[in-house]
Amino acid sequence: MFIAMNRFTVPLENAEAFEALWLGRESHLDRMAGFVEFHMLKGPEADGMRLYASHTVWESEAHFRAWTRSDEFRAAHARAGDSRKLHQGAPTFEGFAAIQHLSADAAA
Amino acid sequence: MFIAMNRFTVPLENAEAFEALWLGRESHLDRMAGFVEFHMLKGPEADGMRLYASHTVWESEAHFRAWTRSDEFRAAHARAGDSRKLHQGAPTFEGFAAIQHLSADAAA
Repeated sequence: MFIAMNRFTVPLENAEAFEALWLGRESHLDRMAGFVEFHMLKGPEADGMRLYASHTVWESEAHFRAWTRSDEFRAAHARAGDSRKLHQGAPTFEGFAAIQHLSADAAA
Repeated sequence: MFIAMNRFTVPLENAEAFEALWLGRESHLDRMAGFVEFHMLKGPEADGMRLYASHTVWESEAHFRAWTRSDEFRAAHARAGDSRKLHQGAPTFEGFAAIQHLSADAAA
């Protein structure tokens, strides 16, 4: 399992507009091979800024890499300029590989 | 849904020991109400350090808060000193609330 996160630092006065833009966008993820799930996450607030993170779970890093090379990726990011003026600096990308998994189901 | 992450900055020479310690520990999460799943994540490397993150999904922030006040939490963290000397500084906690969810299943 591979998790792709993009971290956005958003001034509090832009938070509502930033959320509205994300919630209203057209996502093309559900057409992609290896896509598991996506969450938009609202994180902690500090110094007048709130941390947001897009959080996408893929079956593997290879599936994520294929997405970044796809037409659907380009289409999904074509309107990223609308969001850019709402957050500070560039979003920070972090990719994570799962090395351990514990689930509530396994305990049942 | 609520995601609790702790970020650890681990010098590369300690990475193997850090992973072994996590994979070998006794977790008490699966006994807790509202626990959904846990992943230990291996992140990017930069400047001789690797980012790791513990990543726990809870049904709600209230379930997470109850866990931090539990005997199981104290037991799980009693041996944290073993890990402390393997990473730089304190782990950084970030709690996230999901504001949007897209899943592959919904597309089917």
